[in-house]
Amino acid sequence: MRVDGTATRTIWRDGPRVCFIDQTRLPHRVAVVRAGTVERMARAIIDMQVRGAPLIGAAAGYGMALAMQQDASDAGLEAALLSLGATRPTAVNLQWALRRQRNRLAPLPPDQRAETAWAVAAQIADEDVATNAAIGRHGLELIRALVPRGPRLNLLTHCNAGWLATVDGGTALAPVYAAHDAGLEVHVWVDETRPRNQGAALTAWELGQHGVPHTVIADNAGGHLMQSGEVDAVIVGADRIAANGDVANKIGTYLKALAAHDTGLPFWVAAPVSTLDAAIQSGVGGIPIENRDADELHWMAGVDNSGRRRRVRVTPSDSPGHNPAFDVTPARLVSRIITEQGAVPASREGVASAILGKADAMRGRT
Amino acid sequence: MRVDGTATRTIWRDGPRVCFIDQTRLPHRVAVVRAGTVERMARAIIDMQVRGAPLIGAAAGYGMALAMQQDASDAGLEAALLSLGATRPTAVNLQWALRRQRNRLAPLPPDQRAETAWAVAAQIADEDVATNAAIGRHGLELIRALVPRGPRLNLLTHCNAGWLATVDGGTALAPVYAAHDAGLEVHVWVDETRPRNQGAALTAWELGQHGVPHTVIADNAGGHLMQSGEVDAVIVGADRIAANGDVANKIGTYLKALAAHDTGLPFWVAAPVSTLDAAIQSGVGGIPIENRDADELHWMAGVDNSGRRRRVRVTPSDSPGHNPAFDVTPARLVSRIITEQGAVPASREGVASAILGKADAMRGRT
Repeated sequence: MRVDGTATRTIWRDGPRVCFIDQTRLPHRVAVVRAGTVERMARAIIDMQVRGAPLIGAAAGYGMALAMQQDASDAGLEAALLSLGATRPTAVNLQWALRRQRNRLAPLPPDQRAETAWAVAAQIADEDVATNAAIGRHGLELIRALVPRGPRLNLLTHCNAGWLATVDGGTALAPVYAAHDAGLEVHVWVDETRPRNQGAALTAWELGQHGVPHTVIADNAGGHLMQSGEVDAVIVGADRIAANGDVANKIGTYLKALAAHDTGLPFWVAAPVSTLDAAIQSGVGGIPIENRDADELHWMAGVDNSGRRRRVRVTPSDSPGHNPAFDVTPARLVSRIITEQGAVPASREGVASAILGKADAMRGRT
Repeated sequence: MRVDGTATRTIWRDGPRVCFIDQTRLPHRVAVVRAGTVERMARAIIDMQVRGAPLIGAAAGYGMALAMQQDASDAGLEAALLSLGATRPTAVNLQWALRRQRNRLAPLPPDQRAETAWAVAAQIADEDVATNAAIGRHGLELIRALVPRGPRLNLLTHCNAGWLATVDGGTALAPVYAAHDAGLEVHVWVDETRPRNQGAALTAWELGQHGVPHTVIADNAGGHLMQSGEVDAVIVGADRIAANGDVANKIGTYLKALAAHDTGLPFWVAAPVSTLDAAIQSGVGGIPIENRDADELHWMAGVDNSGRRRRVRVTPSDSPGHNPAFDVTPARLVSRIITEQGAVPASREGVASAILGKADAMRGRT
């Protein structure tokens, strides 16, 4: 995607360093961090300067390359795996990237490890980009089918499943960028996405940088816009998808799916096959929902008139808050799951076909 | 309701002045304004130091009393009506209160006008309190019927249709206070209510002051809580209700109604009969929806660590916003409309019966 007109990834190698955009400063400032040590990279993951499951995986991969530059001994390898592995313990992609690096690096003599770690990190990043491009192509077909509703197509999205959550291209936003780049007239309603404001802060910023017309709305507004004919389809990402097609995603997704269903609009979930979890039979009740710190509700971060970063408290000092981070959208409300293997129905058959297709593709590649 | 343990109205007379709580300072500070002139009262309505349809009506009534103290001539009467009438031109209760004062004051000699204006203002305020008490009683019966689900009953509310929106007692919160005061164990999930945060700022504060257990949640969280069995009923207010039972209320209400319907929970709308608009046949498409300034989305107000009021911008400086203030919940999603005339079905028959009941009651009174 473009930043100030220049094609940019969220993370990249620059000689002996790893560069990444500090997402905690967005949308008010584009600050690029140049990390030279695994310790700095681990800190970036902990502090959410990089976030989004695919990007965390790539960051862990690059972190291992930095570590092997510093100390490629067996002890150095183990220490780096432990330190990166502890940054976001529940992030599936992070553990997967570390296993991949360990499997490749452990058998090698130390003097070959740094070069290989850089190569594996680049591979992880490139695969993410390719996966998202495929999601974009499959999603574009669905968007094209809406063109008779046009000329301008209005898509609504929740949270940030965009370029910034990945190495490049995004998941939910991949079809949007594909449509925009193909010359379709798309406009995106961007849910603010309380309480962490990923829509207002990140999705709005990256769409703006890439030149995609968009408008920020309160999370409360989407139902009214759908009812008023101002939305043509809803497209969101996913954190985990159960074997039956139930979708765990950012809190509030379920409400948008209900409104899309009530108003007869398509509700699409775009996610890589790695998000499909065949071990979980049903999402409602089956996928554990993380409760985060209620301070995310009580305090709001932004910049004041002079551009200085500030936090303000919006609730009474003695009112408690409750902050579940995800909800589960039942499969019956999901029109399609868009994966790199194609757009499949949100059903046991659909989920199984995407997983099998991916397994076949992986076998074909090796 | 109680503030710091003392029973308090939102507006009251103190000798030659009108006192009211400055709602723009809540929840961080309880500041009482003592207004001695109609100009000050008009400014308070414009600046939303007093807000909420019933309270605006009462404030206009008291504003006329202040005006008659200052200048009870015919010219003074007309000037005051004009100045107060221009403060919030779309507020139905405001125009109604001004008409009521004019009808009583115009026929009187000037030297009797001030005393009568104070009496009419007190009458408007007292009637609002009585209406809300009746809504509380009827709603309490519905809440009592939920007790087998208890012991603790969890009610979810959106926006502020509480004490602060009225002279006392609230509309949507009247049944909650009635249940709490009757010794039922009620707990309220308070929707933050973006973009103006009336839930986080006002509803949480007034429930806390009255000692009602409550928890602030993001607007996004309600669907998940309903799905998880953590909600027993939803209760909201209304800005206008069409003849068929469709309900216009704060943006986001429709999404909560969908979730309540999807999870089999009661969805109650509490509103005085004056909110029922028999002239509008159907709400969806029939009730005009006000779009407010998008800066309400871009900028967030609160207090910093030192208690100083600040505003912070949360969106990119070049991202546009769209800010519809209300949405319409179709009658099919509404379980009951709770009025001072009783809880009626959200249907043409139900709405008509409440309007006719009120008309009979008014005739009986005069």
